[in-house]
Amino acid sequence: MNSAVYLDHNGTTLLDPRVLQAMMPYLSEQHGNATSRHVFGRGARQAIDHARGQVADAVGAHPSQVIFTAGGTEADNLAICGIPATRPNGQIAMSAIEHPAVTRPAFAMRSRGHRVAVIAVDHVGRVEKNHLDAILEKPTALVSVMLANNETGVIQDIAGIAETTRRHGAFMHTDAVQGLGKIKLDFTALNVHAMSLSAHKINGPQGAGALVLDKRVDIQPLLHGGGQEKGLRSGTENVAAIVGFGAACELIRHELVQRTGAVRQLRDQLELGLKALGAHIFGAASSNERLPNTSFFAFPEIEGETLVMALDRKGFAVASGSACSSDSTEPSHVLLAMGVEPELARGAVRVSFGAGNSRQQLVAFLQVLENELQRLKRLTAVAV
Amino acid sequence: MNSAVYLDHNGTTLLDPRVLQAMMPYLSEQHGNATSRHVFGRGARQAIDHARGQVADAVGAHPSQVIFTAGGTEADNLAICGIPATRPNGQIAMSAIEHPAVTRPAFAMRSRGHRVAVIAVDHVGRVEKNHLDAILEKPTALVSVMLANNETGVIQDIAGIAETTRRHGAFMHTDAVQGLGKIKLDFTALNVHAMSLSAHKINGPQGAGALVLDKRVDIQPLLHGGGQEKGLRSGTENVAAIVGFGAACELIRHELVQRTGAVRQLRDQLELGLKALGAHIFGAASSNERLPNTSFFAFPEIEGETLVMALDRKGFAVASGSACSSDSTEPSHVLLAMGVEPELARGAVRVSFGAGNSRQQLVAFLQVLENELQRLKRLTAVAV
Repeated sequence: MNSAVYLDHNGTTLLDPRVLQAMMPYLSEQHGNATSRHVFGRGARQAIDHARGQVADAVGAHPSQVIFTAGGTEADNLAICGIPATRPNGQIAMSAIEHPAVTRPAFAMRSRGHRVAVIAVDHVGRVEKNHLDAILEKPTALVSVMLANNETGVIQDIAGIAETTRRHGAFMHTDAVQGLGKIKLDFTALNVHAMSLSAHKINGPQGAGALVLDKRVDIQPLLHGGGQEKGLRSGTENVAAIVGFGAACELIRHELVQRTGAVRQLRDQLELGLKALGAHIFGAASSNERLPNTSFFAFPEIEGETLVMALDRKGFAVASGSACSSDSTEPSHVLLAMGVEPELARGAVRVSFGAGNSRQQLVAFLQVLENELQRLKRLTAVAV
Repeated sequence: MNSAVYLDHNGTTLLDPRVLQAMMPYLSEQHGNATSRHVFGRGARQAIDHARGQVADAVGAHPSQVIFTAGGTEADNLAICGIPATRPNGQIAMSAIEHPAVTRPAFAMRSRGHRVAVIAVDHVGRVEKNHLDAILEKPTALVSVMLANNETGVIQDIAGIAETTRRHGAFMHTDAVQGLGKIKLDFTALNVHAMSLSAHKINGPQGAGALVLDKRVDIQPLLHGGGQEKGLRSGTENVAAIVGFGAACELIRHELVQRTGAVRQLRDQLELGLKALGAHIFGAASSNERLPNTSFFAFPEIEGETLVMALDRKGFAVASGSACSSDSTEPSHVLLAMGVEPELARGAVRVSFGAGNSRQQLVAFLQVLENELQRLKRLTAVAV
């Protein structure tokens, strides 16, 4: 067992032991293929249907609106490729701070004749609504704006953006992967046509996600085959992972307030300490809503990657820039879109709290951070 | 725990307890996102790389040729959509007996300008090579022929088909999902460019598969995003499932001969009993190579679906037609392609043996089958 302190819960989370317990029968004696009609298959089918209800309940949706996928990236790709595919002439509009799971399929759709428009964000990372209005003057198939940013934690006014989008006759998708389990989500109130979710960000298993979809939206599947998920996502269902996703959703439905209160306390205390050490905290304007567990910050003249590695050696796992593009040493596209100077952006480090983190760990982290900052500043001074 | 006898191993298999044991650390304390650079992420990355070696070793491939996916359907879709995408004018040729995970993406590619050609099979279910030759006279992007059919178990001469395909400058894909773990597979000897695999058919977990790909083949990804799997399959890796897939491959590498010997004995004994009861066994010509575990048969005037349900009530789980199209009551497209009369095809029932099946179970099965056949024949007689 790894003894390091895990502070990267926006990257992935530890599987909740209660979730694992719910999954175990489907990793042992219950092993049906959910498309089979015999007793084993029917057991798998029932387990999936139960999980579908749990996921729907957690986000204020109807079970029939939940399409299970292998994860958040697949859910995003399904929406970004599948919805415009039925509207050949419409552009795809997305914010400048989307996850690559949205931006890259959008750009891939250019080869199928779709224009891509990028909606600017302001200096605290919120979508510029005037810019959205201007973009929507062209025929638009789909607008995609993430509910909460994975790096900064900044939360968008999705219901407002959806209203504007609908007024222009376009469909609205939101990547809510980082929102689920951290803030209350209500598919109906958000008024979007499609919403992506992922299990492994909420102490559920890797390998399960969902696209919650308004059934009136015409969509083309990404994966063709046996016709699972009403033909919208073929492939033998990963029953254990789906059951785990359902169980994890059930838990957040009951524990959301308590969980978010706990991480918010840690995050606020962290940021007091960070400011005392001279950090710049991104997106932290008092007027700005952020996820309660996330802090994205930089120290001038300290490279983020270097600091992450130094903290790793001292037993603290944090992320630099986006954890989802490990091979990249470019500064975060999110920060650049917010107008942050590339030099400061290169210093970006993300701490994201979650289940299992304690005040004690936080105190130890701040102490180690202070020591490492001093050491790195001395090294920088020598190097110059 | 379900006490029914499971005779549907081509549908899915029970997770081997040793495989589950290998997965457990990644379902509990080891929970990194493999793209993260901290100690948790590096642990996940190493586990995936180890599994990649195990999968490669099991099929005579190089680890760098293994692209992990969420399953066999995704691997098929990646090949069928991704390879022709780089060859806009080439047709897609596939056999008439492919799985829907091949046929449906192929037909979907027609909307992107690709012609689809269907290669006929003979009465025992083998590809008509003359027909393939004729089809290949037109410019062809990709030929896809499954290694072993999921319903009949009939094995194709993939190396021979690949040679013909290569001579015409096309790429060759084989869906080897049903072959893995049942016969020896050698990617290099098969001489194909791409081969699909699935973990849950070999006592591994649901949620993992692979496309084994000759790196010289230009291919477009299906899932765009964080750039995992060298950009060919984005999305957070399902570490536990991939580890399980690797472990299951390692086991078949050591146990293949013993396992196939055991199921072959059961299958041969089953077929003696079936013939004595008057069954027609599909694809069972003595000249025809079949998977050692699979028997696909029909009794004249007994509907397959009815027989499957009757056997299910008596505690025996078998499949009718293809287990992968549960909502369909059409006769098997595989049998129709082989020239079987629709009336006989509607009687088709599949028994597929695997780990845990015993001679005792077989004896009991044959007895119950005989009773149910008599009962159903009486009912039919009354109905007439």
